[in-house]
Amino acid sequence: MAAYVNMDTLRFMLFQVHQLGDIFQYPRFADYDEESISMFLDSVKDFSDQELYPCFREMDEQPAHFKDGKIIVHPQVKVLMEKSAELGLIGATFDHEHGGMQLPGLALQAAYFIMESANNNAPGYPGLTAGAAHLITSFGTQELIDTYVPNMMAGAWGGTMCLTEPQAGSSLSDITSTAYPQPDGSYKIKGQKIFISGGDHEYCENFVHLVLARIEGAPKGTKGISLFVVPKKRIQPDGSLTSNDVVTAGDFQKMGQRGYCTTHLVFGEQDDCQGWLVGKPHQGLSYMFQMMNDARISVGRGGVSVASAAYYASLQYAQERPQGRRIMNNGEKDVSKGQTLIINHPDVRRMLLLQKAIYEGSLSLILESTKYHDLQRVTTGEEQERYSLLLEMLTPIAKTYPSEKGRQAVDNGLQILGGYGFCSDFVLQQYYRDIRIMAIYEGTTGIQSLDLLGRKVTLQGGKALQLLVAEIAQTIQEAVGMQELAPYAKTLQGQLGQAKEVLDYLLPFAQSGDFERYLSDATLFMEFMGTIIVGWQWLKIGIHAQQALLTGNTPYGIEFYESKLHTMKFFFKYEVGKNSGLADVLMDDVVLTVLKEREHIS
Amino acid sequence: MAAYVNMDTLRFMLFQVHQLGDIFQYPRFADYDEESISMFLDSVKDFSDQELYPCFREMDEQPAHFKDGKIIVHPQVKVLMEKSAELGLIGATFDHEHGGMQLPGLALQAAYFIMESANNNAPGYPGLTAGAAHLITSFGTQELIDTYVPNMMAGAWGGTMCLTEPQAGSSLSDITSTAYPQPDGSYKIKGQKIFISGGDHEYCENFVHLVLARIEGAPKGTKGISLFVVPKKRIQPDGSLTSNDVVTAGDFQKMGQRGYCTTHLVFGEQDDCQGWLVGKPHQGLSYMFQMMNDARISVGRGGVSVASAAYYASLQYAQERPQGRRIMNNGEKDVSKGQTLIINHPDVRRMLLLQKAIYEGSLSLILESTKYHDLQRVTTGEEQERYSLLLEMLTPIAKTYPSEKGRQAVDNGLQILGGYGFCSDFVLQQYYRDIRIMAIYEGTTGIQSLDLLGRKVTLQGGKALQLLVAEIAQTIQEAVGMQELAPYAKTLQGQLGQAKEVLDYLLPFAQSGDFERYLSDATLFMEFMGTIIVGWQWLKIGIHAQQALLTGNTPYGIEFYESKLHTMKFFFKYEVGKNSGLADVLMDDVVLTVLKEREHIS
Repeated sequence: MAAYVNMDTLRFMLFQVHQLGDIFQYPRFADYDEESISMFLDSVKDFSDQELYPCFREMDEQPAHFKDGKIIVHPQVKVLMEKSAELGLIGATFDHEHGGMQLPGLALQAAYFIMESANNNAPGYPGLTAGAAHLITSFGTQELIDTYVPNMMAGAWGGTMCLTEPQAGSSLSDITSTAYPQPDGSYKIKGQKIFISGGDHEYCENFVHLVLARIEGAPKGTKGISLFVVPKKRIQPDGSLTSNDVVTAGDFQKMGQRGYCTTHLVFGEQDDCQGWLVGKPHQGLSYMFQMMNDARISVGRGGVSVASAAYYASLQYAQERPQGRRIMNNGEKDVSKGQTLIINHPDVRRMLLLQKAIYEGSLSLILESTKYHDLQRVTTGEEQERYSLLLEMLTPIAKTYPSEKGRQAVDNGLQILGGYGFCSDFVLQQYYRDIRIMAIYEGTTGIQSLDLLGRKVTLQGGKALQLLVAEIAQTIQEAVGMQELAPYAKTLQGQLGQAKEVLDYLLPFAQSGDFERYLSDATLFMEFMGTIIVGWQWLKIGIHAQQALLTGNTPYGIEFYESKLHTMKFFFKYEVGKNSGLADVLMDDVVLTVLKEREHIS
Repeated sequence: MAAYVNMDTLRFMLFQVHQLGDIFQYPRFADYDEESISMFLDSVKDFSDQELYPCFREMDEQPAHFKDGKIIVHPQVKVLMEKSAELGLIGATFDHEHGGMQLPGLALQAAYFIMESANNNAPGYPGLTAGAAHLITSFGTQELIDTYVPNMMAGAWGGTMCLTEPQAGSSLSDITSTAYPQPDGSYKIKGQKIFISGGDHEYCENFVHLVLARIEGAPKGTKGISLFVVPKKRIQPDGSLTSNDVVTAGDFQKMGQRGYCTTHLVFGEQDDCQGWLVGKPHQGLSYMFQMMNDARISVGRGGVSVASAAYYASLQYAQERPQGRRIMNNGEKDVSKGQTLIINHPDVRRMLLLQKAIYEGSLSLILESTKYHDLQRVTTGEEQERYSLLLEMLTPIAKTYPSEKGRQAVDNGLQILGGYGFCSDFVLQQYYRDIRIMAIYEGTTGIQSLDLLGRKVTLQGGKALQLLVAEIAQTIQEAVGMQELAPYAKTLQGQLGQAKEVLDYLLPFAQSGDFERYLSDATLFMEFMGTIIVGWQWLKIGIHAQQALLTGNTPYGIEFYESKLHTMKFFFKYEVGKNSGLADVLMDDVVLTVLKEREHIS
C-alpha cells in the first residue's frame, strides 16, 4: 500500500498543535477524549486503505459519465455511501436531537482529510450530503427535518447544493430559477442548474437538492434569492417515492476528479417540480452561506489532501530511485561509484520540502479554521462573536492557500519523477489534474480574494482583522521566548508590519471611493496574506515541536519533531522570504491604471 | 477559426525588435528579404490553419498508442510530414551543398512557432527529423549524408535522438547501450532507449535513430560515449530496405501532448542491429549537444507556443462571456443593468496581461537566442565566439522560462474560464496538460538550472556572462534616453546590480569547494535570472514600440504599439517587481544547510 497520509503528523496537529483537548471541556463534546477520537480516525484510515485508495486510479480511468439519461458512477460509490453512514461520516457532528453524535468538527475534518488523501473522488458524495442535511437542520422546519434528514444521514439519499446557472456563473445576483407559490404553501420550481457535484447516480434512491431560486416577483440581485428543498423524488402519502420532475440533462466531463460526477439538472420542465421554502423568503443566500462557507473550507482541505497524497508518492519515488551522483568538492562527480538515490540531490530535497511545507502548513490552517468553527458553536456572546469573526476572516484564505499553493506542491511532486511524472502509469499526473479544480470550486481564487480584501478586511470596521492579528501576536510572543524560534518570530512580526503598510497604502483608495483600484490587486494581496498566515501556522507547529524536544516528551520519536522544525525553517526561508517582493508590487504606484484600461489588451 | 497566434506581433518581433534585416547582409542569407520571409510565414500559417489546428483536439482524444507491435498515430501525421517537406520545414536552413535553402534560422523558428501554436502535437515529427539530419550533415561522413539525409529532408524517413535509458534518466554518465566493432567498420548495437519522441509510426518508411552508446571497453562516464546512426531498416545493396533489429517494445501514455508518440525502443535483441559511428569515438556527447541545444530552444518555443494559443483562447472567451458587474464608486454593483463582459473585471485583465506578458516576452527571448544562432553561423573568429557564448548563456534560460512561466500563463488562461476551464469541452485544459511536459523534455528545469549556474555563469571565467550583461546594458542605454522608458531602464539596471550581489554572495561557495551549497538554490537563481532576461526583452520591445509611436511609423495601428508598452509596464510591475524577494531568499544565510540534511525529510 502506497502512503498517502501520515497519521502521526495528523495526530500531532490535532492533539498538540491545535489542542483538541481544549474543547472536551464543553458539554457538547463531553463524551469524547483523545483516545476515542484516535480510534475513530483509525477506523477511517482502515476504511480508506481498504475501500477508497484501491479504486482511486480506476475511478479516473473509468470516469463518471452520462448515459441514457442517467449518471453512471463507479460501483464503489455504493460502499462509500453505506460505510460513510455507518462510520458516522455524514451526521456525526449533528446535535443529539437530530440523531447526531455531537462529534467535534475537528475530528470529522481530520477524518475527511484521510479519506480525501486516499481518494479525492470520494468525500464529496457523503460530504455534500452532510452539508445539505446540516442546512436543513439549521434553518428548516421540523417537518422538513423529519422528512429528509434521517435518510440523508443513513446515506440512502444524497444531498447537493444548487447555485450556479449557465448564464450567471459566479454572479449569484443573476440567478433566474423561479419559484411559484402554491396554495398548499409549497412552490413550483423552474430553472436550470449546472456544475452540480454529486447531483445524481444510481446508488442513492433519492437526492435532496438545496436550490437557490427567486420567488416570482422577488427583487433583483442577491436580496431576492430564496432557498428551497427540492427532492429528485417526492414522497407520496404512503411513503413511496414518485418523480418530482428533476431531470438530469447531462454531465460535465472534466480534466480531473473524474470519478466525482458533475451534473446539469433541469427543474420543472414538465411544470411538475415541487419545492419547499427553507427559512424566510429572500434570505436564501444567507442560509446557503452556512453550507457554502463550510464547503469552502472543505475545498481547502481537498487541496491539502491531494498535496499530501502527492507528497508521499513523490517521497517514496525519491527514496527508491537511483540516479546521478552528488557533486564532490572539486565540482566533479565520481562515475566509478554507483548512482545515488535522487533524494540526495539538493534540488530534489528542495522540491520535497516545498511540498511538505505547503501541505503540512495548509493542514494546520484547515484545522485552525475548524477549531474556530467548533468553538463558535459552543460559546456565546462576545466570545462566540470573536470565534465567528476569526472564522470568517480565515475562510477565504483556508480555501485559497491550499488550492493555489497545493497545486504548486503537486507540480513539484510530479517534477521529481521527471518523465515518469508525466506518464499515465504513475499517479502524480492524476493528482496534478485533480487538484486544479480546487481553485475554481465554491468561488474561484479571484472571488475569494475579493471577499478577503473587500469584505473581510473591512468587516466591522476592521475588527475581524484585529482579532486575527492578536491571535498571531500571541503565537509570536510565545515563540520569541524560545531561543530556536526567536528569529522566526521576529520575521513574522516584520511580516505583520509589512501587511499593515500594504493596507495603509490600499485602504485610502476604498475610502476615496475608488473601489475598483482598491480591489484590483486583491489576488496578489491574497497570496501575500496567505504566506503570512501559513507562516503563523508554522511558527505554532514549531513551538509545539520545540517544546516536545525540550521536555523530552517525544512520542513520535525525536526525528519527527526535528523534521517539523526543519520544515518550518524551510518555509520561512523559501516562502516567507519571497513575500517582501509581493509587498513591493502591492505598493507600486507607477502603473496604477494597468488593469483599468480595457483597450490595451489584444 | 479560433485564434492561436498573432501574426502582427510575430512580424513586429522578427522585423523590428530582432531586426531580421541585419542578417540579410551576410552572403549565406543574401537570397532573402522581408517580403520573401513574410510570404513563407503566410504559407505556414495557411498550412497550420488548414491542416494542423483542425485536428488538434482529435489528436488528444485519440492519442498515439502502441498496438500489435506498432505505434499508431493520427493519420494527419502523413500530411504533416509531406507538407513539411514541401514547405521546406525540414531542410530549409541547411547549406545549399546539402540540398538546403540557407533560410535564416529565425524564419524557421517563427514558422515552427506558428505550427506549434496551432497544434503542439505536430512540430516534433518534422522538427526532430530536421535536427537529426542536421547532426549527420555536421559530423557524419559524406556516405552517411548521402545515404540518409535526402530521404529525411523529403519527410519520407523520420529522425530521432536516443539518449535516455531506463536505469539512467538524466544521468547520461550511466548509459550502458553498447556498440561492438565489426570488421567492416560498422558496429553492432545493443541496448534500450526510452522516452523516444516520434520514434516510430506508419507514415515514415524508415527511421534514422541517433543513438548514444559506448564502444565496448570505452571509459566510464560521459567521456566514453559515442554517437551512432542506427536506422530502423538497413539499406540493401539493391536499395531495398530490410529490418535492422530495432524493435518498438511499447509506448508511454502521457497526460498531455498525447498526439505526439513517445516510444520505447530495443536495439539488437537478435544481435542483428547495425550502426555507424558519427565523427570520432568517445566524442558522441559533444556532437549530440548540437542537436540537444537546438532541441532545448525548441522546447522553450513549445512553451511559448502553447502559451500563445492558450492566451488567445482565453482572450476570446473573456471578450464574449458576460458575467457580473463592475464595482461602482460606492462599492456596490448595479443589478438593474445587464452583466458586463468578464474582460472588464480587473482580475480577469490581470490574468490576461500576465499571459500576454509571459508569452510575448518569451517569444522575444526565443528569437533573441535564435538570432545569436544565425549570427554564429555566418561570422568568424572573435565575433563568432561572442555569439556562440551568448547563445550558450541564453540556452538554459530560453528552455526554462517559457516552460515554467508559460505553465503559469496557461494556468491563468484556464482560470479565466472558471468551471468551464476544467471541462473537457473547452480547450484550455488540453493546453494545461500539454505544456506540463516542457519543464521535463531535454533536461528538466533542475538540470537547466545547474547548467546555468554551474557551467554557464562560470564559462571562460565569466566571459559569457559579461557579454550578456553588456548586451543588456546596451538596451538599457538606448532606453534611458527615452522619457517613457527611462524608469524601466533604471529598474532593469537595478536588477543587474542585484544579480551581481547575488553572484558575489554565491560564488565564494564554489571557490571554497562547497559546490553542493553553491548549486543548491540553482533553480531559484534560474527563476530570478529568467525574470531579468525577459525584463530585458520587454525593454527592447518597449524601445521599438515607442520609436514607432514617436515617428508615427505604425503599420499595425497605434493601439498595437500602445498595447506593447502597456504590457511592458505590466511585466515590470508584476513580475520584475517581485524579483527582489527572490534575491533576498538567494542571499539568506540563516538556514544554509536546509537542503543538505537528508534526515529531516519524512
